[in-house]
Amino acid sequence: MSEKDELFEKQISSKEVYKGKLLWIFEDQVTLPNGQIASREIMKHNGAAAIVPITEDGKVIMERQFRYPLNRVITEIPAGKLDGPNEDRLEAAKRELKEETGITADTWINLGDYYPSVAYTTECITLFLASGLHKGERKLDEDEFLNLEEVPLEDVVQDIMDGKIADGKTIAAILKADKYLSTHSL
Amino acid sequence: MSEKDELFEKQISSKEVYKGKLLWIFEDQVTLPNGQIASREIMKHNGAAAIVPITEDGKVIMERQFRYPLNRVITEIPAGKLDGPNEDRLEAAKRELKEETGITADTWINLGDYYPSVAYTTECITLFLASGLHKGERKLDEDEFLNLEEVPLEDVVQDIMDGKIADGKTIAAILKADKYLSTHSL
Repeated sequence: MSEKDELFEKQISSKEVYKGKLLWIFEDQVTLPNGQIASREIMKHNGAAAIVPITEDGKVIMERQFRYPLNRVITEIPAGKLDGPNEDRLEAAKRELKEETGITADTWINLGDYYPSVAYTTECITLFLASGLHKGERKLDEDEFLNLEEVPLEDVVQDIMDGKIADGKTIAAILKADKYLSTHSL
Repeated sequence: MSEKDELFEKQISSKEVYKGKLLWIFEDQVTLPNGQIASREIMKHNGAAAIVPITEDGKVIMERQFRYPLNRVITEIPAGKLDGPNEDRLEAAKRELKEETGITADTWINLGDYYPSVAYTTECITLFLASGLHKGERKLDEDEFLNLEEVPLEDVVQDIMDGKIADGKTIAAILKADKYLSTHSL
């Protein structure tokens, strides 16, 4: 039996059960590999882009932002949602970096995709490394409040290893960038 | 002005808008740092544990599992939800590893917490490195289908760097484990 036959779940039906401004929830019915029927709850999401902006002297532009679900300020890399399901991810990354930090970048490297939670959401965040930075004016959304700080990459890595930084996309992007930069120059 | 005053959002109200078996959604009203009122949609989650089970010869026990939101089989580390908000995370990790792989482990190292999506969920996954492995019988949930494979840690790391593995908790846990093991022996 092929792996697909052993593991595949086939959709029978799909029903929208909640649509907010941000969250969009469906209850689906599926046929399991053993022929039984099960329900699946999923959250649809257009996707996002996240950026590790690194200066010539190896500092990362990090954000301090209040995150309501955690009820505290956390340290994370710049990121933002796509404008729609078909927006180019690099274009979204450039826009979000400019809006949140005022920075534009000469060089963009795609560090790969990051799926925050494969159990329940379609969300995919594409991770980028941006260098050759130029500073300018930032333009935050009306309900967006965040502070910026420049932190040496090795200190961000240490904060991740010490558990002080626990934001998922930040752990993934910074550790991938750090590994990439151990064998490539900017 | 303190960072808290600059960034903090204060809850005004909270309303449950959807409760499924897995997903639990609230629409809250908050006061922003500038005094304006905004809405926040959040998903409450009890949390989870994820495990990097590593053999004496440096191979990781990986899972191949169909993930319905992505409509495909993906490669990931063993993981599972807490039984309730107060379950001990190490106990949950031990239970899930045993259920999904049949493995028990002598040595457990806490690699830190991982927040999959700070924008909209309270979910926190605690990451563990497990070694001194003993194989036994696995005991999957009725609607759970997954295949196991043993892969050298360096190959898992390479698949992450190449973008072949994109599951968030797997990227975070494997790269943290790899970095930890570069300076510690098992």
